[in-house]
Amino acid sequence: MCKVDLNCDMGESFGNYVCGQDSEVIPYISSANVACGFHASDPSVMSDTVKLAKAGGVAVGAHPGYPDLVGFGRRNMKVSAKDLKAMVQYQIGALNAFCAANHVKLQHVKPHGAMYNMAGKDEALAAAIAEGIYEVSPDLILLGLSGSELITAGEKTGLRCAREVFADRAYEDDGSLVTRTKPGAMITDEDEAIARVVSMVRDGHVTAITGREIEVQADSICLHGDSPKAVAFAKKIRETLTAEGIEIRPMWEVIL
Amino acid sequence: MCKVDLNCDMGESFGNYVCGQDSEVIPYISSANVACGFHASDPSVMSDTVKLAKAGGVAVGAHPGYPDLVGFGRRNMKVSAKDLKAMVQYQIGALNAFCAANHVKLQHVKPHGAMYNMAGKDEALAAAIAEGIYEVSPDLILLGLSGSELITAGEKTGLRCAREVFADRAYEDDGSLVTRTKPGAMITDEDEAIARVVSMVRDGHVTAITGREIEVQADSICLHGDSPKAVAFAKKIRETLTAEGIEIRPMWEVIL
Amino acid sequence: MCKVDLNCDMGESFGNYVCGQDSEVIPYISSANVACGFHASDPSVMSDTVKLAKAGGVAVGAHPGYPDLVGFGRRNMKVSAKDLKAMVQYQIGALNAFCAANHVKLQHVKPHGAMYNMAGKDEALAAAIAEGIYEVSPDLILLGLSGSELITAGEKTGLRCAREVFADRAYEDDGSLVTRTKPGAMITDEDEAIARVVSMVRDGHVTAITGREIEVQADSICLHGDSPKAVAFAKKIRETLTAEGIEIRPMWEVIL
Amino acid sequence: MCKVDLNCDMGESFGNYVCGQDSEVIPYISSANVACGFHASDPSVMSDTVKLAKAGGVAVGAHPGYPDLVGFGRRNMKVSAKDLKAMVQYQIGALNAFCAANHVKLQHVKPHGAMYNMAGKDEALAAAIAEGIYEVSPDLILLGLSGSELITAGEKTGLRCAREVFADRAYEDDGSLVTRTKPGAMITDEDEAIARVVSMVRDGHVTAITGREIEVQADSICLHGDSPKAVAFAKKIRETLTAEGIEIRPMWEVIL
Repeated sequence: MCKVDLNCDMGESFGNYVCGQDSEVIPYISSANVACGFHASDPSVMSDTVKLAKAGGVAVGAHPGYPDLVGFGRRNMKVSAKDLKAMVQYQIGALNAFCAANHVKLQHVKPHGAMYNMAGKDEALAAAIAEGIYEVSPDLILLGLSGSELITAGEKTGLRCAREVFADRAYEDDGSLVTRTKPGAMITDEDEAIARVVSMVRDGHVTAITGREIEVQADSICLHGDSPKAVAFAKKIRETLTAEGIEIRPMWEVIL
Repeated sequence: MCKVDLNCDMGESFGNYVCGQDSEVIPYISSANVACGFHASDPSVMSDTVKLAKAGGVAVGAHPGYPDLVGFGRRNMKVSAKDLKAMVQYQIGALNAFCAANHVKLQHVKPHGAMYNMAGKDEALAAAIAEGIYEVSPDLILLGLSGSELITAGEKTGLRCAREVFADRAYEDDGSLVTRTKPGAMITDEDEAIARVVSMVRDGHVTAITGREIEVQADSICLHGDSPKAVAFAKKIRETLTAEGIEIRPMWEVIL
Repeated sequence: MCKVDLNCDMGESFGNYVCGQDSEVIPYISSANVACGFHASDPSVMSDTVKLAKAGGVAVGAHPGYPDLVGFGRRNMKVSAKDLKAMVQYQIGALNAFCAANHVKLQHVKPHGAMYNMAGKDEALAAAIAEGIYEVSPDLILLGLSGSELITAGEKTGLRCAREVFADRAYEDDGSLVTRTKPGAMITDEDEAIARVVSMVRDGHVTAITGREIEVQADSICLHGDSPKAVAFAKKIRETLTAEGIEIRPMWEVIL
Repeated sequence: MCKVDLNCDMGESFGNYVCGQDSEVIPYISSANVACGFHASDPSVMSDTVKLAKAGGVAVGAHPGYPDLVGFGRRNMKVSAKDLKAMVQYQIGALNAFCAANHVKLQHVKPHGAMYNMAGKDEALAAAIAEGIYEVSPDLILLGLSGSELITAGEKTGLRCAREVFADRAYEDDGSLVTRTKPGAMITDEDEAIARVVSMVRDGHVTAITGREIEVQADSICLHGDSPKAVAFAKKIRETLTAEGIEIRPMWEVIL
């Protein structure tokens, strides 16, 4: 039977600052990427988020980011491969403590924001992340953009990898995402977005912005949980996929 | 045979800032308390410090502190028990990632600075720390001041505990440390300090500041590594203890 | 004619995190306490907030706090008087740069959260803050709790002081606020709260929790802007005061 | 008479961490670039450093950097022009509070590390910095690399600018610094370094790495104070310049 994972960023609140609609989106996803205190989150938020995910039957992953809270980890930082590897390991370990405390197995690691984007294109940074994860635990799954350097590095390192696709983004002929600044980069029609996802999951291809049909591997779909509208979309995509006979399962089952 | 552990704080450098004489003191100690990025250290320093300890045959412990880098974790902060527990778990997990990456077993946890002092006297904070450690792993040893609330909480929680004593500090009748501001609080004569340590380790008692002989359990001796003089003292105390027939072993062996 | 200032905390957003309803509350207040990047806010938020206050005709004050972003400056920290003075000066200066850039005169300084509470009771900390402000500029007004050590220290130092009262809090016989945990500490009835404020501003007294009538000097009323309900209350209190013939003016005019 | 300024970074200690040899280098320089708490320093260190500079008769400048303490502000960060302008203003203001408290006039602003390097080449970032400074005070001097975009932006904005040169660095034909990784980038012979400085200050030219003679304007020479050797070099360069009849004066006098 056809399966796919639905992943969403979680636990991005910080101290007094609330961010996201974690409780609302939990029922519709199968994997949670939990922020680890560098670009967002704090220890108490992480503890609560792991409990929330466990209660909701959602698999937990670490979502390490750059040490840039004010920039929410979205600004490129020129970090060395050595520092990058260490900061990824640190954040995985920190989240893993809450997993251990709650008898939850840490499923995956997905780099956040600028780290995700840079590692998607830069071989050395991608290798630093993949090796960092592998050293901490070879059982962890690396979640990255389908077709990116990150996935290549993960496979080379010996990690299991899950490839994610975006419902709301257009693709170039080479499988990369169309830059947000280019016209047509965002798929704004919800029905079109969902139809594309169904095609990517079931058939393994999608229409690129040029009109060409391209191949895409979709183990997981990246959803958002930062607004009521995003939550409604998560519900809709889950219902449609289920109606189409596609099962929603955590990524470790999808890539078995 | 009589055994004791020698512990020392390590990995307190931060980015460009160098602190401590880690390489110099490693040969003389048996357990390292590694800072975890809240009051000192950063991911790369932690990674390097775990490798250094492993190479030197020294057991590794986590040294969690308050999130107060500018105050080096030495300033009391009124944190809730919930937040304290979460910040301890976060830091243990972060260090544990580097232990896993280097195939080192995390041996113990010793709270740092103001956290150590407050938890030594406050039952609720002590319980939060002990439970936080136990939840992450019941195998971890809690290292605390001999006779403190922290040790009481650790035992109550079911953790193995190691009791530490100070070579350079005077004791009150009840086994607590004499406040630094009180005359006679510091034992400045090195030979006297070492003689007291030998007595505490071998005989289980020490002369309090009042002149009374009191009982003290000494599983581990806290050394300093922040100056050439401190390193020379570490060497001297190790040599004297060895000459006295006291074996220097990591705390897990001492408390077996 | 009878005058009073209405002050409210502002600029508490941080990076991606939005906090407060600054634009909504601006029309109803006369002085803004702008967070300075230690317990909340960041440089861009501060710049925007000063522009917002200027556009709304509202006087600007610095709202320095403890360096505890995750705790929102609400947790006591044992800082030395020297460090406290320096951190207050730093934050005043930082905000003042945005005032200078926008041709706005910095009107006042109001310590935030735990710093406000500690300095309200601790003479040495109060003195450190007052002297810190005075050294940066003797023209700045110190805004503190009516009857507190902070006001005493400000007057002793030679600063102009503005005394603030709370609409939603009960008072003890000695003029201090009733601790929140005590029954009756909060005035939950809006009409009662406003009636009390009118009495404090116009007559200089209020009924303490014991039933006794006590004297209170009310130069400024502390409002909240963190919820739609708080904004509605700000509107209501402004309208009632105006209807009662009490003029709403920035504190520098009230204490002339 | 021929004049030049000698500038040096100062106040880079942080909390418990000591960095630099500020007291030792003060006698040899005429302008201090004081770190402002983002890449290094803290409020108490800044306060002490301004007092130290004042006591030593050295002019004070702000040394703003990226918010990257662990990277010491040396890592490129992709910040927006708006955020960059605000973070520069924030840091200038923060330092200016200590200047005001000590009756010292803030003389100049020199961006630090990665900010200095990026603004030296990027017109938009350079403009953001120059405008940020100008808005806070048109009296401030912008200190930047001779021939850089930063100087161009400063002049365009209407700021007085001071051009700095490096004693220990080779120059390309276009007046830019030879990248450190290129052979011959560093001038390691002290006598050669000093002879080059004399030539740059007195004659306005220097031999580029290609052998060509190029024009360079030298209002200020950048010295280091982070090691005993650096301090000895500062002493030597000051003595040689003085012996050559070149007067050491703060930059505001040099560019009069």
